[in-house]
Formats: sequence, structure tokens, C-alpha cells
Amino acid sequence: MHPFDDAMALERRSDGVQVGRTTPAYWNFAGPFGGVSAAILLRAALDDPARNGTPVALTVNFCAPVAEGEFELVPSLVRGGRRTQHWRVEQRQGGEVRTSASVLFAQRAHTWSHQPAVMPVVPPPEAVEPMGDQGWTAWIANYDFRFVEGGLVMGGPAQETLHPARSLVWLEDQPPRPLDWLSLAALADAFFPRVMHARGLRRTRLGTVTLTTYFHVDADELAALGAAPVLGVADGERFSHGFQDQRVQLWGRGGNLLVSGSQMLWYEQ
Amino acid sequence: MHPFDDAMALERRSDGVQVGRTTPAYWNFAGPFGGVSAAILLRAALDDPARNGTPVALTVNFCAPVAEGEFELVPSLVRGGRRTQHWRVEQRQGGEVRTSASVLFAQRAHTWSHQPAVMPVVPPPEAVEPMGDQGWTAWIANYDFRFVEGGLVMGGPAQETLHPARSLVWLEDQPPRPLDWLSLAALADAFFPRVMHARGLRRTRLGTVTLTTYFHVDADELAALGAAPVLGVADGERFSHGFQDQRVQLWGRGGNLLVSGSQMLWYEQ
Repeated sequence: MHPFDDAMALERRSDGVQVGRTTPAYWNFAGPFGGVSAAILLRAALDDPARNGTPVALTVNFCAPVAEGEFELVPSLVRGGRRTQHWRVEQRQGGEVRTSASVLFAQRAHTWSHQPAVMPVVPPPEAVEPMGDQGWTAWIANYDFRFVEGGLVMGGPAQETLHPARSLVWLEDQPPRPLDWLSLAALADAFFPRVMHARGLRRTRLGTVTLTTYFHVDADELAALGAAPVLGVADGERFSHGFQDQRVQLWGRGGNLLVSGSQMLWYEQ
Repeated sequence: MHPFDDAMALERRSDGVQVGRTTPAYWNFAGPFGGVSAAILLRAALDDPARNGTPVALTVNFCAPVAEGEFELVPSLVRGGRRTQHWRVEQRQGGEVRTSASVLFAQRAHTWSHQPAVMPVVPPPEAVEPMGDQGWTAWIANYDFRFVEGGLVMGGPAQETLHPARSLVWLEDQPPRPLDWLSLAALADAFFPRVMHARGLRRTRLGTVTLTTYFHVDADELAALGAAPVLGVADGERFSHGFQDQRVQLWGRGGNLLVSGSQMLWYEQ
């Protein structure tokens, strides 16, 4: 079984609560990799028998660290209409909320379409060196990172010289796995915090507090992608008063914008 | 009383529920202006006696239209920690959820700071022609819009020629009012949908389904701004399958990024 599918395993209880567990493969420093948490919260709503439509937007709030082991996911339909459904999902351990999410599903339609955003011109992934497993934190071994621009500069303690906050990186599940809603949700968080890129920090206390992901594809477009690398673009606009933003895009090789997203992270100093 | 303060009026019941009402000044086609809804949901959490810290992030999900008249706001603390508090707020009418929000408050700190994003070079607001009240929909009369670039092209029915999705616009409360968390939350939505800009449409069925706003300022920086225009930048990356994104920034005149945000909107055809 692919390690991502192992991390996405859920058992549905008769009361509608879904039970999952953290896996060592996606462990990060102080809890599971946030992208896997985002994906499993999305899954809990996606798998609910009352769900209608495909994902349009996902916001995940990281309220408290998720401990190793079992957790409960409680999906609830906040409001459903003809075109859209708004869901809320809580991830709980020991009866306490650790993570909460809002998920928007919709009936996608055939409409006028237009993509003003243009995919950056970059070499193909085959022509870019993989970052390799840095022996650093577990979850990164599940992705193939090929930095085209703005790779991590592991300077140790904070350096005087600032580096770009922007990265362009080919990303792919490792081993390769056909893209689906869940892996896109995880990939949207498969970036290193901008504060580390900009300052050349390897270790610093920080964490995502809230994450929003928008899905631009419908089910057919997603299915046609198969297992393929996506081009990730990440940037940060402002670091101030202990918080920083991060904006991301995921591009398909054909030049379609698949996902766009943003998050806020805290950092200690 | 300023029309914005009138729209922000809330009465707190003994059960913690806050009661407000829509005002004609901020009416839009099928409900109140979304920015005013975002602001009043933020206010319900901000005014709660248990709130601690200043706003960092606000996500608002527009689940169903808000009807003219009274509404209830139900704030609840999802999880509070030493550094952050996660709140949830529901806006209800007739016992049904119309809008729901997650709000993140935090203790801001004095930390390393850095702003990789650069404010666009534009003429000052005094040198730009105001759009004027188009006699179009009520809420726009409460803002002074001065488009530097990417103004609305009111072509009537959809045109063959596409226009830029990006706008640069000086925005200010009208009459002027000192900026605060609430007015920033509203200003982050004081843009016209990108689909109207790109297609030159004046009337089309559309609406925001979800909106996320990040606050980069702390209380002191905000207070120092006073009543002043902010430079708004809005862009859309992809319009497809009935949905489009919109990304925004609000800049202070001094060049600081005050707010960044994003939203997804549906459009009919």
C-alpha cells in the first residue's frame, strides 16, 4: 500500500464519526505533516454519504498539536443548497479539538473559462536535480522535490544575508501515485516555511496556524492528470509581529493551474 | 453616526448571542455586501469577553443569502492556547446558518520582520479620478474607488474582447473613517468580481462562496494609520467550471502590506 493511502485510511463508525491514526511515514517535528492532516479532514467530508459535489475550497485551522496515534474526525453538513454544500470537520483526540476545517463542495458546470495566470517557464522535472532525503524530518521522504529556483539554503543559525522567499519546485508523490483531491490537498502544503527560505534557517520554532486551498479542476480534469509531477510556486509577502503568510500555486505539466492556496504561520523570533 | 458603524451595531444578549441587523446603506443585489458580513462576524468574536489577542486570519463561508432585517451571531471559542485562539462564528436567521466564519486571534510579538512584497508604484489618490456612485448597487456609495488600473468596463452583455483581471485601486471609506480591524475586513472584499472586469459584464449572476483575509498589522501599526486611503490590488488566476478565485492585497500609503486575502466566487455562465 502507498504510504499516502495508509495515512488516509479511515474507519467509519455507526455514529458517522470516522477514526484514523497518524503514521510514522508522514511525521513532522511536533505532529503529523500539516498537508496530511488537511487531506484526512477533507477525506472525512468527501467520504460522508451526504456529500454532494467536488471540492472547491478547504480551510484548515491548526488549533493544537495532534499527538501520535488514533484520532476522531467529526464531519457535519453546515448548510446544503442546490449548487453548493458547506461542511465542517473537527479532528479530535481525547475529546478535544486539535484541528478544524471548513470544506466547500459544489456541482461544477460547463461555463466560460479563462486563465489569466501563466505557468512559469521552467525546465521539465527530468532536467532538475532531486533534493533527496535530507535525513531531516520523516514526511519529506514521501515527496520528490526538484527545486528549479529558491531551494532551501541550510545555513544553520540565522544568516545575515537574506535569500528569496519565492520557490519554484517540481513536486511529486514518492513513489508516484495518481493525483486525487486528497493528494492535491497535501501537496498544497508540501512547501517549507518561507521564513526558513528567506533566512537560511534549518531549525526554528514555527508552525502553520491556518491553511486555505482552492481547487480549480473538476473530476474529469483531475482524472486525466494521472500520476505526474506538479509545479509548485510558493512565495511570502510579509513577515511581521511573529506571523508570515505563504501563497502557493500547483500547476499541471500542461500549463493548467490546478490549485491555489495560502496559509499563515507563526514563527518564534 | 458613520454608516459603517451603524452596520456594525450589535446587541449582546445574556446567552452570549449578539444581535445585529442589515442596513440599507450596505445592501447589495441579493443580500448585504459580503465585506460588511465578514466584518460583523469578526466583530462578534472580537467583542466577546473571552477573546484574547488581535486578528490574524478570518475565513468566512457564505452558505445562504442573508435576508433584510435582524440576524443572530453565535461566537464560540473552538480552542485557546497561550499564543492563539481559534473562534467559530455563525450568523443565523430563522434558526438557520446563513454565514459561518473561523477567526484566529493571536498575541503578536516583536520579532524579526521582512516584507519581500513591494507596493506597486502608483500615483497618489489625489491624482486619480474617483469612480463616482454609478447608481448601481447601494454599498458602493460607502467607498471612494479610484482606479489606477483595471477599472470596470461596463460593456453590458459579455464582450468578445477580454480585459485585464487585475485592478489597482485606491479605496477609502466614504465619509473617511479611521481604519480598524472591521473596516479592513470589509475593504478586503471591496472589489468587483474579476469575472466582471475580465468580461466587461455589468450584470451577471455570481457571488462569493468563501473569503479568507490575513491581517499583517498589529494594533499599534493599525492605530497609526488613522483615516487614510489604502491601495487595493486584486487579481484572478483561473475561471473554470463555474468558479473563479480572486486574490487581493491592501497597502498602506507608507508601503506596508496591511492585509492579504483570497476568495472563491461562483458565476453562472
